[in-house]
Amino acid sequence: MLTRLFCTLSFFVITSNTIAQQRARDAGIRIGVLPTGTTNTITDVPGVLVGHNTLIQGDSVRTGVTAILPHGGNLFQQKVPASIFVGNGFGKLAGVTQVQELGNIESPILLTNTLNVATAMEAGVDYTLQQAGNEKVQSVNIIVGETNDGYLNDIRGRHVKKEHVRQAITSAKSGPVAEGAVGAGTGTVCFGWKGGIGTASRKLPAKLGGYTVGVLVQSNFGGVLQVDGVPIGEALGKYYLSDVLNNPVDGSCMIVVATNAPLDSRNLERLAKRAFMGLAKTGGIASNGSGDYVIAFSADTSVRVPHQSTNAKQTVSLLNNDDMSPLFMAAIEATEEAIINSLFMAVTTTGKEGHKVDALPREEVLRILRSYKRIK
Amino acid sequence: MLTRLFCTLSFFVITSNTIAQQRARDAGIRIGVLPTGTTNTITDVPGVLVGHNTLIQGDSVRTGVTAILPHGGNLFQQKVPASIFVGNGFGKLAGVTQVQELGNIESPILLTNTLNVATAMEAGVDYTLQQAGNEKVQSVNIIVGETNDGYLNDIRGRHVKKEHVRQAITSAKSGPVAEGAVGAGTGTVCFGWKGGIGTASRKLPAKLGGYTVGVLVQSNFGGVLQVDGVPIGEALGKYYLSDVLNNPVDGSCMIVVATNAPLDSRNLERLAKRAFMGLAKTGGIASNGSGDYVIAFSADTSVRVPHQSTNAKQTVSLLNNDDMSPLFMAAIEATEEAIINSLFMAVTTTGKEGHKVDALPREEVLRILRSYKRIK
Amino acid sequence: MLTRLFCTLSFFVITSNTIAQQRARDAGIRIGVLPTGTTNTITDVPGVLVGHNTLIQGDSVRTGVTAILPHGGNLFQQKVPASIFVGNGFGKLAGVTQVQELGNIESPILLTNTLNVATAMEAGVDYTLQQAGNEKVQSVNIIVGETNDGYLNDIRGRHVKKEHVRQAITSAKSGPVAEGAVGAGTGTVCFGWKGGIGTASRKLPAKLGGYTVGVLVQSNFGGVLQVDGVPIGEALGKYYLSDVLNNPVDGSCMIVVATNAPLDSRNLERLAKRAFMGLAKTGGIASNGSGDYVIAFSADTSVRVPHQSTNAKQTVSLLNNDDMSPLFMAAIEATEEAIINSLFMAVTTTGKEGHKVDALPREEVLRILRSYKRIK
Amino acid sequence: MLTRLFCTLSFFVITSNTIAQQRARDAGIRIGVLPTGTTNTITDVPGVLVGHNTLIQGDSVRTGVTAILPHGGNLFQQKVPASIFVGNGFGKLAGVTQVQELGNIESPILLTNTLNVATAMEAGVDYTLQQAGNEKVQSVNIIVGETNDGYLNDIRGRHVKKEHVRQAITSAKSGPVAEGAVGAGTGTVCFGWKGGIGTASRKLPAKLGGYTVGVLVQSNFGGVLQVDGVPIGEALGKYYLSDVLNNPVDGSCMIVVATNAPLDSRNLERLAKRAFMGLAKTGGIASNGSGDYVIAFSADTSVRVPHQSTNAKQTVSLLNNDDMSPLFMAAIEATEEAIINSLFMAVTTTGKEGHKVDALPREEVLRILRSYKRIK
Repeated sequence: MLTRLFCTLSFFVITSNTIAQQRARDAGIRIGVLPTGTTNTITDVPGVLVGHNTLIQGDSVRTGVTAILPHGGNLFQQKVPASIFVGNGFGKLAGVTQVQELGNIESPILLTNTLNVATAMEAGVDYTLQQAGNEKVQSVNIIVGETNDGYLNDIRGRHVKKEHVRQAITSAKSGPVAEGAVGAGTGTVCFGWKGGIGTASRKLPAKLGGYTVGVLVQSNFGGVLQVDGVPIGEALGKYYLSDVLNNPVDGSCMIVVATNAPLDSRNLERLAKRAFMGLAKTGGIASNGSGDYVIAFSADTSVRVPHQSTNAKQTVSLLNNDDMSPLFMAAIEATEEAIINSLFMAVTTTGKEGHKVDALPREEVLRILRSYKRIK
Repeated sequence: MLTRLFCTLSFFVITSNTIAQQRARDAGIRIGVLPTGTTNTITDVPGVLVGHNTLIQGDSVRTGVTAILPHGGNLFQQKVPASIFVGNGFGKLAGVTQVQELGNIESPILLTNTLNVATAMEAGVDYTLQQAGNEKVQSVNIIVGETNDGYLNDIRGRHVKKEHVRQAITSAKSGPVAEGAVGAGTGTVCFGWKGGIGTASRKLPAKLGGYTVGVLVQSNFGGVLQVDGVPIGEALGKYYLSDVLNNPVDGSCMIVVATNAPLDSRNLERLAKRAFMGLAKTGGIASNGSGDYVIAFSADTSVRVPHQSTNAKQTVSLLNNDDMSPLFMAAIEATEEAIINSLFMAVTTTGKEGHKVDALPREEVLRILRSYKRIK
Repeated sequence: MLTRLFCTLSFFVITSNTIAQQRARDAGIRIGVLPTGTTNTITDVPGVLVGHNTLIQGDSVRTGVTAILPHGGNLFQQKVPASIFVGNGFGKLAGVTQVQELGNIESPILLTNTLNVATAMEAGVDYTLQQAGNEKVQSVNIIVGETNDGYLNDIRGRHVKKEHVRQAITSAKSGPVAEGAVGAGTGTVCFGWKGGIGTASRKLPAKLGGYTVGVLVQSNFGGVLQVDGVPIGEALGKYYLSDVLNNPVDGSCMIVVATNAPLDSRNLERLAKRAFMGLAKTGGIASNGSGDYVIAFSADTSVRVPHQSTNAKQTVSLLNNDDMSPLFMAAIEATEEAIINSLFMAVTTTGKEGHKVDALPREEVLRILRSYKRIK
Repeated sequence: MLTRLFCTLSFFVITSNTIAQQRARDAGIRIGVLPTGTTNTITDVPGVLVGHNTLIQGDSVRTGVTAILPHGGNLFQQKVPASIFVGNGFGKLAGVTQVQELGNIESPILLTNTLNVATAMEAGVDYTLQQAGNEKVQSVNIIVGETNDGYLNDIRGRHVKKEHVRQAITSAKSGPVAEGAVGAGTGTVCFGWKGGIGTASRKLPAKLGGYTVGVLVQSNFGGVLQVDGVPIGEALGKYYLSDVLNNPVDGSCMIVVATNAPLDSRNLERLAKRAFMGLAKTGGIASNGSGDYVIAFSADTSVRVPHQSTNAKQTVSLLNNDDMSPLFMAAIEATEEAIINSLFMAVTTTGKEGHKVDALPREEVLRILRSYKRIK
């Protein structure tokens, strides 16, 4: 009953976003030099699915869950090569060491608020244990990332419940991805404005392999905002240290990078590190209190890691080190754009204790971008 | 009601342990060259508290929780310097990156089974949020380690509940520590015999600082058992690869190292790494599936890290690099002995699907030790 | 004899630079929001010294050495807290693991070309062993960074000799720092134009501690150049993937970060990581073949680490985690500006096999910056 | 001329070793449960070559070089997958970060004394640049490990010259490997006795893949010696902290692990970590001043990494994570035995300032081993 109510509300918000907001590229902003994938989202990487559950309830609940599935099958039985880069480790990301040790991910990647990591983990365990084919599974590594939405959200209330998480997982789909104040981004704040979920992608030219890199972010951090290099934060007088008392910079950014390039965990870690460079280009400073993590995986079906195998060896065709650089650039560009999209798509939100966080003043931002000749 | 029943049962088991089992040192075994602390437990480090909750229920529930508190006050407000070393990362240890980034621990350290990590984390969050003085806390990093007790325990049933975790925390105390098949060690298996909780300590001579190093382990791993260098595994014909089909070696070992030496996180990481060397000396091999982690902290009150401070700087007197080696040796010795204690103190346990794991045949082991002239 | 000749030549080049080139800030470019130190160089951090030896000889020798001394005393006897962050490890940086393990630096930091790392290390050992007070030293960890200047320089000839390194060390001084095609930057290439040595600094307001962060870079990498956010690379049609065949992007960037904030190695590692974010803001992509490293140290005299001590403990007042963020922003800004300075100050250079690398077309760049309203 | 003299002398020493010394296994010691390879050396791994150059000159030169070649071809053009584990980073190991970043080794692995790392690196660069097929090479990552032989050797004199290094490389061969006070082990001290070079191997049963793991060590560290678990150090009253003033424990241990199992760098890092566990089993404590490193590589020809490739992808058949454990045990056992061999094969050596380090008193040790029933 409650769940349905949440859904109704979240649907309303998404609709609102769809009407009022605009992605950066639709506003004429062109970040980087590489072309985007078809929908300029993480789901441009074949097989990748995204689901949101948005929780807006009463005056104080502004939170949610976002699930990213490397593929729609049984992730435990068919793991994907993966790695995690820790930009700034002030966060509660669950599941890190197993990914780094074994080089793969065996569950949905879940994003939520800081104090609901345990809930999401529990739901992830439920999901895996109950999935057909996993009847004998006794161990599973759940990946849960978080940022702290406690300014807008009654975070101590821990309003995300297991069923919300499950719904985010089971509703995950390919195609367009809702952005802004949805899912795990419902209550987040970025550069002092409303942040949230953002996504973008890049597709390499065929001669460079034709691979796609897709990124999804949960933006909740601070610094001195730059949009495609233009000093928006300075122009609007709203940036870290501009007013030390009233402008908290901490928060965190979760970044998920997907690619269909056939990479092992070592090169995925390198790719993940480049996404952190994309964050830097938006003016983020990875402040002390910001938990900034990048989770990267390959969704290429040929490099999947079976849970059990009759063969002691697995044969894979992996991209050479020498051919990584175009992917690196793609990850940087897509991350930068995903973060900007999270700001462009988020709506003004009022929450806990009457706290209000304004959406990025898009018209003003576009005016500044025009004045700086970055858009027409 | 059920909870009370668990307690009764666990009390019975502990009593049984106390009568029937014997610590390695009480059996005449002298591991290493350094003297022990007063009780030869992790609680020899002033301020450190340990609590267990043992869950034995019906035929199939053989699990539990162990809580280690660096001190008995408000850990969130008075954090302790800490670090984590990942011996083999095939595990779900929660809270790793924040410890590594900020160099401290701000919550109880909780140990349980693999699929109840989320439960323990949730209970840890509850505990912190509800503690007096933490009314405004919106973020806390909970440390939860685990090993997989799924051979004896109905691990998929996730029988550990939040109240069990809380009880382990709130019952934590100084003084003697129950060992063997108790708390998080209720259902674990080590070298093919019943493992569990073990602890030991070393106290340096006054001229080397007089510091104490205490270790507590949750043993659940395999290899080729050596007791104080004596080839027990070989002598008893029970070791990894002795019978490939029937002798699973995987499992994990959680190791907690406490000291009152004034160390920062860098030197605590180095200390943690030495505990892993102690594991090696028991014949452990850190097999592929073994999640082997060491969590090390300093309980020295002079190096505590206040959550908030009016001063931008903290003045500390830290032990020099050059003076670390005796502590390293202490950590190695105490870890080796703690693991052996976990075996010596564990009782034969029957659990899920009638699985039975024998206690280490102590009489036989002592006989072998005598034949090898290691004890009289 | 030859040495003197080199010096003459290098003097000429520096003079040439001084006349013809201009630092970014002198051209009206204002990167970031924080104020610079007095001279906007790494030597704004009290005690830090920099020395160059520039080798320009015949048609093909275009290389050199740059030495950064954390202080002018006996570095071995009075070490400084330090850390190293590996952005992309495709490089030969010597001395990494000891810095990471012990948390300090005990020698000059030397930069040179890839194939002369051994020469610089040898000279560093000489220097340390011969320094008064080090008569009994039998072990010293020399830090040598490098980038590959093999396009302009006959790198296989390994023309840097020990005496060149020694001269860079012994000529190190405070005050203004020569930039551009000098020292270790003599033969480097950055974004397709002539790179080299660059430096910059930031000074925090008194209420944030008043600390200085100084950065020096040896720039030799690629990507898509942005100057203060303005897309110079795109505007000039010269960037990675703009012409895959003729535009090598690999190279490397060595970054040295100094501060007088009292930091331990853990927080210095965090500071180092932010410098890498500054590199990202110039459009660098840390391509596969780019060895990108950041060496950070504290020059604060109160945190120096004596080689030998009569006391087993050292008392230090260290900045809290919570007070790091302003320093992080300072490191990002200073790194970005140092890289841009390296480009603005470098002169067109012709070298091996007639290879010619143009200086950044500053007039054109300034024109573009004006058109994008970034300067007046 | 001098070189010939060294050779003559070293030949004498080796002869002396051959006559007087005995490998642990030849004395009846059986470490571990796995069978050895044919010669119980690192060269049991097909393709691996080892060369020594022993420098014994006058009263004070007691040092040398040991070269391990993953294969006898052009290592730069045909690199091998590799990784490095840092047990304790107080050392000058050159070449670390590139191995960790790119996952391979492209040069001989060289071992020498602490202050001659630069010399060995220079010689390694020479060797690579001059090798046929490398005429255009402008960058190469040389791996040089070291331990400090300054007690017996005039280490400040840096007596190792490039030609000594070259000779170690070019004389590298398969088959028996000289052990004890030879090559890089000429002047080292281990557990207070003469250490040096040691080697051992393990071969897995066919049903576990039949792979070989070979280890070579340069032993120069301390602790409390155990030989196959027997407390030799205690029995002989010679161990760390037994006499704090006169018993330095620092030193270092370099460990090289080779295998023909088809592993990538991630699993090689895991294998390397297990070698460190083998060191622990000898009673080593990785003291503060001990630089303990493990370099692991796969010599399997099917996983070699070509320097240049016409294909952007490389197809490899890699061993699964699940099949690593037997290799882990092999690495532990072989490392333990290699260290013991280094002690058993070393001869009493007198060097600098009349310092004398006794060989392990083998007869006494064997007597103790018999009394402890470990040998007959």
